[in-house]
Formats: sequence, structure tokens, C-alpha cells
Amino acid sequence: MRRDNLALVLRALREGGPAPRAALARSTGLNKATVSSLVGELVDRGLVQEGRTLTGAAGRPGQLVEVVPRQARGLGLEINVDYAAAGVADLTGTLLGHRRVPLDVPALGVDAALEVLGELATEVLREVLPGDGTRAGWLVGTTVAVPGLVDVAAGHVRYAPNLGWRDVLLAERLGARLPAGAGAVQVDNDANLSALAEYTAGVAAGTPDLVYLTGEYGVGGGVIADGRLLRGALGYTGEVGHLPLDPMGPYCGCGRRGCWETQVGLGALLARCAGPGDEVRDPSVDLEHRLGVLAQRARSGDARTLDALRQIGIALGVGASALVNVLNPAALVLGGYFAVFAPWIVPAAEQGLAERVLAPDAGGCRIVPSDLGFTAAVRGGAEMALQRVLTDPTLAPAEAAT
Amino acid sequence: MRRDNLALVLRALREGGPAPRAALARSTGLNKATVSSLVGELVDRGLVQEGRTLTGAAGRPGQLVEVVPRQARGLGLEINVDYAAAGVADLTGTLLGHRRVPLDVPALGVDAALEVLGELATEVLREVLPGDGTRAGWLVGTTVAVPGLVDVAAGHVRYAPNLGWRDVLLAERLGARLPAGAGAVQVDNDANLSALAEYTAGVAAGTPDLVYLTGEYGVGGGVIADGRLLRGALGYTGEVGHLPLDPMGPYCGCGRRGCWETQVGLGALLARCAGPGDEVRDPSVDLEHRLGVLAQRARSGDARTLDALRQIGIALGVGASALVNVLNPAALVLGGYFAVFAPWIVPAAEQGLAERVLAPDAGGCRIVPSDLGFTAAVRGGAEMALQRVLTDPTLAPAEAAT
Repeated sequence: MRRDNLALVLRALREGGPAPRAALARSTGLNKATVSSLVGELVDRGLVQEGRTLTGAAGRPGQLVEVVPRQARGLGLEINVDYAAAGVADLTGTLLGHRRVPLDVPALGVDAALEVLGELATEVLREVLPGDGTRAGWLVGTTVAVPGLVDVAAGHVRYAPNLGWRDVLLAERLGARLPAGAGAVQVDNDANLSALAEYTAGVAAGTPDLVYLTGEYGVGGGVIADGRLLRGALGYTGEVGHLPLDPMGPYCGCGRRGCWETQVGLGALLARCAGPGDEVRDPSVDLEHRLGVLAQRARSGDARTLDALRQIGIALGVGASALVNVLNPAALVLGGYFAVFAPWIVPAAEQGLAERVLAPDAGGCRIVPSDLGFTAAVRGGAEMALQRVLTDPTLAPAEAAT
Repeated sequence: MRRDNLALVLRALREGGPAPRAALARSTGLNKATVSSLVGELVDRGLVQEGRTLTGAAGRPGQLVEVVPRQARGLGLEINVDYAAAGVADLTGTLLGHRRVPLDVPALGVDAALEVLGELATEVLREVLPGDGTRAGWLVGTTVAVPGLVDVAAGHVRYAPNLGWRDVLLAERLGARLPAGAGAVQVDNDANLSALAEYTAGVAAGTPDLVYLTGEYGVGGGVIADGRLLRGALGYTGEVGHLPLDPMGPYCGCGRRGCWETQVGLGALLARCAGPGDEVRDPSVDLEHRLGVLAQRARSGDARTLDALRQIGIALGVGASALVNVLNPAALVLGGYFAVFAPWIVPAAEQGLAERVLAPDAGGCRIVPSDLGFTAAVRGGAEMALQRVLTDPTLAPAEAAT
């Protein structure tokens, strides 16, 4: 009970910003004496502090209470088809440091890829954590994002078709490569973590019903429904890349025909707009650079690029209509490469949605490009790690502030 | 707070059955004095009563407290393409009376159909309510199920393509045709209400993640996720009949091509297994009778019927795989005509699901035929009406027991 109330106050400050105790009592529905006691404990644990003193309209001074952003941090990691990334966020969700390197993960295999990811994590932690051994900068934990089916409870990647991984005990194998103090390692699906990041900090932050699409080689979906991440019975929600949209369509990497991913995955875009020798298809070149080259071609009116993007937009609208008919989200957030090409693909996708969704006006759904770039999964991973302390502030050691 | 605790105790008794106060305190987490006071108020309102006295193992007697089933009732109504139905459930969700009549709703139009529905409601209420004017049998309210897009807050049918209805202010127009005392009228989607009935009382009762499919002319879906009905941003979830599964497929009533409904709706089955003059295609004949004729043909090995059912099963598996990939339910409950033909269509559907769902073993999803028959939506409607008193027992007048 007290743990839940500590969490309630901490989250009220995180979401609402600095506030005097009286305002906290109003926003949480707790009485003032309880709030004062809870704030005292959060101060003891170093998670919040006394801030400025306000003089209110009625002349009564009130001291503001505020979150101490750097008191707790979360580490988010990501393994994807052609890159690895690491980022650290503070208690408010602000990204303090972020690194990403191109990496041909399917070719490297699990061990070599995790070696690189461990080094990235070490570098980004060194960059943002104080070296003086103080407790400031307590790392709550680490979450690694993977484009595939994850058994979250076991930290186990069941199947990641685009990486070529099957049954990898990732939490265990990665944990051994992380620096001491990286905290507990969790594994989660990249689209789920990105959806969480969008709900927490993105363009559609706070929208209780939203769907996030990853826009990578694989197309994954993360669903926030009624303000909560949709997990399903075993945690395998959001496998939207394999919606069966065309019984005569091209074969997918999964062995089936006509999966949505064959129409709108990054592979489909690259195959449509460039020949095999083109630099945009070279996996050793950083993906953002390659996408920048394509965007430049689109801006300069290159017919092949524009036609490819239009086809992607149309196919995006058809598959998205299935999701919108089933889930009725208020926002469909486009991540990954979709966001980069939003000016060219969103109009066709919106038209497809309006035509194909049964509810009037596409059930009120807007298509919005993410502004988190390729950091969404890493931010979501850091956020997922931080949720441990946000739901149970007693995890922060009571001596933290001393 | 007290209202929520009254609801907590009432629901604990409804779901767990008769219990002594001490056991209620344990199961609700409230202290014994609070539970005694709450039980006292529920007794005053006539919703629960003292039952048998138990002698416990330790020799301490404990008096059982139990729900008074007939103290509160809900009326569920349904308008569908070729029938109308009405049912009354008691506070435990048990169906006390149910009537269904064949009705060519698209041909009749709104007013004539509502006239019939109002009469049905009057009959079924007369059947189950005492005529002596006592308060026993308080009707909490009425919910009417419609196969289409419903603005629940406004009681407004936005669009029901298979009825040919658009923008019908149903709560208002139906309310005038119901007997006095029918309570507030709500309108909701038939698949949502059926999913609620399945979650409350069906073969998959208590399964926190389940999808219900209606199996009528239209195919609607109701989604229970994490124990709650998925509503989406504006209440338009579950429009699964228009999943775009084949760009070259037949035209749908909605004007688009290749919608799932064109493959697995009741119209598709009837067209596949019978010529135009066949009695199974005559809308003036009761639907259950017609389905019985087809089931008899299937049992006797009629090739055309068996082939049609196999095709339905295959197409059911393909579309269901989209839902299972996105939602990862533990159960897919087949309602309407799907349940009648389960022995012939489930094997093909399960095979399709196993082949097309990315997660191993179809993500753990079982396909189960509903055993609620064509009563699911009506039961769900009654349940939805009862939820008003289940979430706020103070709605029951305090003098009810006197």
C-alpha cells in the first residue's frame, strides 16, 4: 500500500513536474499528512528533492518538490538487422547518451553481435556516469530490444526471423558481457519498447490507444490500449509483419506468401528503388546515411524512388487498415524508415486508411511520423528498466541521498 | 471509495460463491470490520443475504453470505440480419428467459424491426418478472446488441452495413417501445457483448485474453485483453470482417474487395453449399433450423456441403492468423454459425493457424466453439446492464429489501 502510494507521488511529480505538497495531495487524492510522509521517504531515497519556494496567490508560501533526474537511470540496448544501439535515460526519461553502430547481425551470429553490444553499453555508460564512485547515477537495470518473439519472463528470444536467431537465452548471454552495475537484464520486443517510448515521450505521448510500427527490414507493431502495453496471453502481440494480405503475393522470409512485410519492409523499399550494386543496399554503410541518400533522391524528383515510396504508402495503408479496424487507435505512429519518408508515404497511407477502415474518418486515427528516430526502442528499453523503480520506489536504497 | 469496496465484496460473492465474512476479508484484502459493514449495506439494499451457518474445522461457526440472484436483473436485446432476440439475466448472469424470432431486418427497416424487438422484450419480461408489484426483480437496465459501429456514449448506431442502417439514434427510438421499468437503454456492438458473455459465462470464461468471432452474415470480433473489453479510441474495435485478405477477391457489401467476410460470412457458406431455391437460403425460415439442415447434410456426407465447410475452415484459419499474430489471445471463441459447424471447420482453421502464426504453437491459442449458441449477444447485453449495479451497488435502492 505504502509502496503504491510512493509510486503514485513519484509518478505525479515525473508527469506533472515540480509541485508543492498541497498540489500533490490534490492530484493524487491522498491527504496532506500522508503526502508529506511519502515525500520525506522519497527524499531519503534521493529520488526527489526540495526545490524553489513559491509564494502563492493567497500569500501562503509553498515549497516545490521535484524529481532528481540523475538519481536513477535506465540502460536501453537494441539489436537489429543491421545495427546495434545503446542509450541511457535518466529518471525523467531524458536520453543522456546514445550510440549506434552499423552491424550485419545475421552474418555475425549471436556471440559476435553481443560482444559489440556489450562494448557499446560500456562506452555509453562511461560517457554518462560519474567516475567518482558516488551513488549518483544508480543504474536501475537494462532492457535489450530484439525484433522478434520474446519470452519476457525468461529473458529468452524464441524466434527472431530477420536476425536468424532461434531460442537464444539472451538475458544470460548478454549479462556476462555487460559492465558490473548494469543491473538486472530484461529482454523485450523492439516494437513493444518503441510503443512504450512513444506513449511516454513521443509525438503521441499520453495517447491511451496508439499503435507503433517499426519500419525496419521486419515490420513489428507495438500496441498501447487504454494506456497499457498490450501483451496478450504469452507476450507475442504485435506480429503485424505477417498479416496475410495477398494469397498470390511474393514469398516472405518466414516461408509464407503475401505477408505485409514483403510489401512494406525496408527490403521491399530498397529492392524497388535501387539495383544490387547501389550504395543504399550496402549493409556495411550506416542505415541513416543510406536513407538520407534516398530522401535526397526523392527530394530531387527521382522517378524510381518516388514510385517506390508511393507503392510503399499504398501498401502501408492497406495493412494499417486491418490494424485500425481491429484496434481503433487514435494514432498510428510510424517509426524507423517510415518516419524518414513520411512526406512521401503518409498521404497515400492516409488515403488507403480512409478508404478501407469501416468507421467514419478512419475511426479518428491519425498517421504520425515518430520524432524519436532510431532511438525509440532504446528509449523504451531504458524506460522499461526505470519502471521498476517507478512502480516500486523502495528499490532505491534509503542511504542513496547521503 | 466505499462504493468501490461495496462493488469489490459483491463481485467476490458473485464470482466466488457464498462465503463467510472472514473469507471475504481474506479474498478482498479488506479488514473484517469493514467487510461486516459493507455486507450490512449490501443486505440493506437486498443484493446479498445471510445464508447457511457453517461449522468450520476449528469449531468456529461462520454464517455464509450470498448473492440474491433475482434481486437485480438485466435485459439484453439483439437485432441481427435475420433475427431479433431478447433475454433476461439475473444478478449472477443466469439467463432466466430468452426469445428469438426470425426477422428480415434489412427488408423491414428500422421502425418495423424495433416494433418487433419491443414486443419481444415485453414478452420475455412478462415471463420472468413477478406480476405482484414487489420490488423483487428490479430491472437495472437494457442493452441492445447491433452488428455494426456503435457510438456507445450516445446510444447511436453509426453504421451497420449488413442491416443497411446508418446513423440511427437507437437508444432513443427503442426506449419509446420498451415497457415502463426497462431502465436506461444502452446500445453496443454485438461482438463486444458476446465477448463479454464468453468472458463471464462461456467455455473460455475467465480467460484474460480472448477473441470472440460472431459468425453471422457479418463477421465481427470482440476482444478481451488482460481481462478487459478492448474499446479503442472511439469504441470501434473488432471490425474484423473487413480484414483485406485478397486484393483480387470478391467484392464485399462494403464496396471493397477481398474482405474476410466475403470468405467466411454466413452468406459465403450459403452461396457455396446451396442453390438459390434451397430452403437453407430462405430468410423467412428460422436460422437455427436452416443450419440444422446443413449440419444434417454434412453428417450424411453431402460432398457440396463438406467442401463448402472445408473452404470456410481454411479461410477462417488465414484471417484468424492475422488476429492471433496481433493480439496473441489464449482462446479464439467461435460463435454464431461457426459453432454449429465446429466439427467440420475447426480442424482446417487450426491447421491454418499453426501454419500462419509466427509464434510457436500458434502462440498457445486454442480455437473453441461457443456453447452459448445464438444467446451470446443477449447474455452479454444483460451482463453489460448488470455491470452498472456491479460497479456501483449504491444504485440499488436502500429500501429494496423491505
